[in-house]
Amino acid sequence: MGYELRAAIVGATGYGGVELIRLLQAHPYVRITSVISTSSAGAAIAEGFPHLHEIVVGVLDELDIDLIAGKADLVFLATPAGVSSELSPKLLAAGLKVIDLSGDFRLKSPEVYEQWYKRKPASQEYLDLAVYGLCEAFGEDVRGADFISNPGCYATSALLGLIPAVKAGWIDPSTIIIDAKSGVSGAGRAVSLGVHYAEVNENFSAYKVNKHQHIPEIEQTLGRIAGQEIMTTFTTHLVPMTRGIMCTTYASVIGERSEEQFIDLYKQYYEGRRFVRVRPQGKWPATKEVSGSNFCDIGFAVDERTGRVTIISVIDNVVKGAAGQAIQNLNLMMGWDETTGLLFAPVYP
Amino acid sequence: MGYELRAAIVGATGYGGVELIRLLQAHPYVRITSVISTSSAGAAIAEGFPHLHEIVVGVLDELDIDLIAGKADLVFLATPAGVSSELSPKLLAAGLKVIDLSGDFRLKSPEVYEQWYKRKPASQEYLDLAVYGLCEAFGEDVRGADFISNPGCYATSALLGLIPAVKAGWIDPSTIIIDAKSGVSGAGRAVSLGVHYAEVNENFSAYKVNKHQHIPEIEQTLGRIAGQEIMTTFTTHLVPMTRGIMCTTYASVIGERSEEQFIDLYKQYYEGRRFVRVRPQGKWPATKEVSGSNFCDIGFAVDERTGRVTIISVIDNVVKGAAGQAIQNLNLMMGWDETTGLLFAPVYP
Amino acid sequence: MGYELRAAIVGATGYGGVELIRLLQAHPYVRITSVISTSSAGAAIAEGFPHLHEIVVGVLDELDIDLIAGKADLVFLATPAGVSSELSPKLLAAGLKVIDLSGDFRLKSPEVYEQWYKRKPASQEYLDLAVYGLCEAFGEDVRGADFISNPGCYATSALLGLIPAVKAGWIDPSTIIIDAKSGVSGAGRAVSLGVHYAEVNENFSAYKVNKHQHIPEIEQTLGRIAGQEIMTTFTTHLVPMTRGIMCTTYASVIGERSEEQFIDLYKQYYEGRRFVRVRPQGKWPATKEVSGSNFCDIGFAVDERTGRVTIISVIDNVVKGAAGQAIQNLNLMMGWDETTGLLFAPVYP
Amino acid sequence: MGYELRAAIVGATGYGGVELIRLLQAHPYVRITSVISTSSAGAAIAEGFPHLHEIVVGVLDELDIDLIAGKADLVFLATPAGVSSELSPKLLAAGLKVIDLSGDFRLKSPEVYEQWYKRKPASQEYLDLAVYGLCEAFGEDVRGADFISNPGCYATSALLGLIPAVKAGWIDPSTIIIDAKSGVSGAGRAVSLGVHYAEVNENFSAYKVNKHQHIPEIEQTLGRIAGQEIMTTFTTHLVPMTRGIMCTTYASVIGERSEEQFIDLYKQYYEGRRFVRVRPQGKWPATKEVSGSNFCDIGFAVDERTGRVTIISVIDNVVKGAAGQAIQNLNLMMGWDETTGLLFAPVYP
Repeated sequence: MGYELRAAIVGATGYGGVELIRLLQAHPYVRITSVISTSSAGAAIAEGFPHLHEIVVGVLDELDIDLIAGKADLVFLATPAGVSSELSPKLLAAGLKVIDLSGDFRLKSPEVYEQWYKRKPASQEYLDLAVYGLCEAFGEDVRGADFISNPGCYATSALLGLIPAVKAGWIDPSTIIIDAKSGVSGAGRAVSLGVHYAEVNENFSAYKVNKHQHIPEIEQTLGRIAGQEIMTTFTTHLVPMTRGIMCTTYASVIGERSEEQFIDLYKQYYEGRRFVRVRPQGKWPATKEVSGSNFCDIGFAVDERTGRVTIISVIDNVVKGAAGQAIQNLNLMMGWDETTGLLFAPVYP
Repeated sequence: MGYELRAAIVGATGYGGVELIRLLQAHPYVRITSVISTSSAGAAIAEGFPHLHEIVVGVLDELDIDLIAGKADLVFLATPAGVSSELSPKLLAAGLKVIDLSGDFRLKSPEVYEQWYKRKPASQEYLDLAVYGLCEAFGEDVRGADFISNPGCYATSALLGLIPAVKAGWIDPSTIIIDAKSGVSGAGRAVSLGVHYAEVNENFSAYKVNKHQHIPEIEQTLGRIAGQEIMTTFTTHLVPMTRGIMCTTYASVIGERSEEQFIDLYKQYYEGRRFVRVRPQGKWPATKEVSGSNFCDIGFAVDERTGRVTIISVIDNVVKGAAGQAIQNLNLMMGWDETTGLLFAPVYP
Repeated sequence: MGYELRAAIVGATGYGGVELIRLLQAHPYVRITSVISTSSAGAAIAEGFPHLHEIVVGVLDELDIDLIAGKADLVFLATPAGVSSELSPKLLAAGLKVIDLSGDFRLKSPEVYEQWYKRKPASQEYLDLAVYGLCEAFGEDVRGADFISNPGCYATSALLGLIPAVKAGWIDPSTIIIDAKSGVSGAGRAVSLGVHYAEVNENFSAYKVNKHQHIPEIEQTLGRIAGQEIMTTFTTHLVPMTRGIMCTTYASVIGERSEEQFIDLYKQYYEGRRFVRVRPQGKWPATKEVSGSNFCDIGFAVDERTGRVTIISVIDNVVKGAAGQAIQNLNLMMGWDETTGLLFAPVYP
Repeated sequence: MGYELRAAIVGATGYGGVELIRLLQAHPYVRITSVISTSSAGAAIAEGFPHLHEIVVGVLDELDIDLIAGKADLVFLATPAGVSSELSPKLLAAGLKVIDLSGDFRLKSPEVYEQWYKRKPASQEYLDLAVYGLCEAFGEDVRGADFISNPGCYATSALLGLIPAVKAGWIDPSTIIIDAKSGVSGAGRAVSLGVHYAEVNENFSAYKVNKHQHIPEIEQTLGRIAGQEIMTTFTTHLVPMTRGIMCTTYASVIGERSEEQFIDLYKQYYEGRRFVRVRPQGKWPATKEVSGSNFCDIGFAVDERTGRVTIISVIDNVVKGAAGQAIQNLNLMMGWDETTGLLFAPVYP
């Protein structure tokens, strides 16, 4: 098909990076030309990831801007917080397009970043430059952009579940409570007692209650949609499973709105967007039903007794919550159909 | 040591019944004299439950009131909904004490029962007679009673997390939202696609949203505590694990209350009750930390930004949510220390 | 690309059938034109499988030979044992190509089938006609064939691990012991206490010891390779996971053979076959490293102390052990590259 | 009951140590007087193990021989390999009884220890002194002893499954193959990528093939039973579960022996030993059926076709494979009934 984009991946030894490899292998217009790891440069890519044996044959490159600039047109940054704030400006200056999967460029205010991430923020100039790539909401901004900040996994699930209702003014923004649950891959590949199998298995736990760094990301985005400041209650839980996020979101309904009306509203908002699937009345999505895929599925329950709506939204945190959405952003940046290379069915069971 | 209560268990082929066997084996004052199954009478108890091989040697008895009355002083009913409403009056009439683990006698109103359980209710007379055995809240009523309705698993977890705050008037009852999660044993031992391993594993799902039969049980009890009608939003989720329930409960705080104040309030309310453990500030309990035990652990987070408290309460649904609490009720009925035979440590990991 | 094969799937409400749908969706030369279920005809395909919502939009067809013959060129039979023995002759007579995923045509002897399957065998005529589609061993037979018997999941894993060594005469066939372990999806989607989550989770169990119906399939095939009768000891175990099979196979080595020599032998035997990946010395494959993919990975350990080789082979039972290998057979039948539509990376983690 | 033994636990922040705390809490004749951790001395015991909140109230002691000698009569060493070889002689010299749960004193030959453990061995004097505490086989040696080496988890499961048949001469010792599977708690509480939830979950893997340090322990013990040198093939696998070991053991039967005969032989050998349960014909034990308990369950399959017996033996690796067997040894040392404090039912489901 002629055109072929050369892509580099930085931070390919984490779960986001290795999922980018899996997905880009199947993308018709992209060739991975460099996989970069500061810690393991020179090692075979498949050594740390035996599932890629005979599929990916190269070795890990060093992190060298000139080297990347010579080999690639675009760079995916799947690095821990605090790395891409330094790296992205240099890569952009070298003429590369950048899609940053870390949280470094999601918050527009450096003060808010510092408060929640407890790190030195990126410069205001580049924070302003970065386009927040929540494709179904801000896809128009992504088209033609060179620098994308890929949304957080929890934020993606919560926001896709909330935006149409907030935009329509159907729910009271001061009543939003998001009860979020994630599989363990969301914690990354770094070892700690908190991800030890014997500690996580047969266990369900809450963590970072009221303190998760996706809270300001969700609030910033909802505020942008609503045109007013919004504060939410947001709790994160660890589920004994590898992949998947569910947000069970509660809010008081303004006026009387039926489940059918919510379904229609969401179908209308997401019309033409293949990766959001609104479920029929009385059906709520489960995380396995999107596992391994780029879908976000949404279902509703309206309780007339209490006047509240319960919105259930699920994603695969590694795909729609990270690598898949990054490729969806790539597709939009390049003017391709947003589903290119991503329209595969979930893996079930 | 002299006294020995003879106990019968009806419905011993479900998870509640078999857990009663495990726990009563270790109880110093109780001897199991009859284990009853309508479906498998005559078979060895250990046949369907090989883990009891050489531990429990008898055979399953038929369901015969006279037989039970001749063999036992007290009967645990671990039967499906709709069975004990018929059976309990007969057992009581035969002079037996009864602890009912089903939902048949939890709701005081037959109309409400019928609405939520979609079944014929028990008679008002026996609904009035049954003592709702939430030990830490209504233990005084249990002492000396002959007929106990053992609380539901979700209800136990939610209520122990809410009662002190509701009683103190520290939270706005109209804002209570309970996001509940349970392991699969809560669904019972009956087979269905919904409990098929390949459907549940690596999956997190919501079910019966706004429709779970523990909603009226929670509301009836909170209403009794508060002296006013209370309506809650309550969502149930299935966690890919066998045992454990967590309720993550949200409510707006009335006035300004710190986490320390909530901790003090709860410690005071539960003083002398060994099975409720209030966690120190900044610590939230995980389900594994009570697994296999009769504890209910509770932690708090107060969010000054939104004025809400998040209460996290966990139990083992099979123990504190069923068989363990039933034995705790037995202890109270008999005037024994409520911890008799139950004060063992959780199984970890 | 011009050519398009019309495929029908019978028995699409089991795990093999639904995986065929997932994989064929991504196949460039195949269009699914009919999905057939005797039990649910008329229902939307996505109703029982919500992960296919908006991906597969048709309804389930009835099982009607004329209907299938009008709509399809080839039929995949993902039916329980005993169904395709009746159905396949009729479908073949109607001019359709058939790939049978059940065990009905794997054993060439009707007596042996009856002994192990405890069912009425297919006719000798059709047993003779069916080509045993273990692609890497008998791919030449598959090319141009109209009727394929797709190998069993355990048999695929065991045989790919054993064939090169048996063929080379490097191991003593009378010493072969296969210790096999499978995820729960191998038991199918039918409900039973044996697949209840609470019974399987945190549990490892053996079943059908010395009695599994894949034993004669393995022995028939090894005998064909060796030119002599071979009897094996074969144990099946259930692993608390959804997908994956590992065979840990033991045999006494004839002569002195190093691990490197085994690796070379297998690399040579499987040269050009992309779906078998021989691991480097000292590395043994894990089931997750092939999950969701059509690969079979193999590793070796030679113990000089005991003179035995341990061969570890893993597959995804639903892909290489069922639907994936069926499509690989389709590719070979049609003269396409055997990897067409199947060359995607395993899902990790 | 008057007598009370004061026990100290060294290494209480691992899974073996914390399980000792759980089990000793329920032991009628033992009081834990010191819990020792070199890394966390001074911290509350329940801090790292919140499940012990309000159950164990002390702080962790330093490792100081005099301190221990002043507080305790007996010491459990639940330390990593290489620690107790130094520590045990000192504790014994201070007049303490010692039960060592590590591997340091299991092998009688320092050379063999060095070869398999890759560490400096203990002195021959203390290796000779240590009694190998496989209670059901060598319980007589344990009575009255002061220094016990507690068997390894895999070794316990394998040996209890093999000893009666080896002793009776019913199997050919040169044909023994042990295919062993363990839950993840067997790897200990130290963090590593190998125990990361996302790497272990939905995965089944083999490790240390032919190289596990329990191989010489098994061979030394079988050799002692048989009066001749025995070599075995032994493979270890990691099961995605927390607790449990199964050994599937294969051997050629000498003469003709039926399953009933094996069952009788084992029942006779283990007569009076409550913790070994021989299963009836046609039943094989699963790991969950002993979970949380001190039982070892054993089942058999004899294959007339191949002349082999398959022996399936299961234990809970943390109980019978570590802390439970250590307490069983304590009971024997002290002349108490070996089941004291240990005769509780498995936790099911």
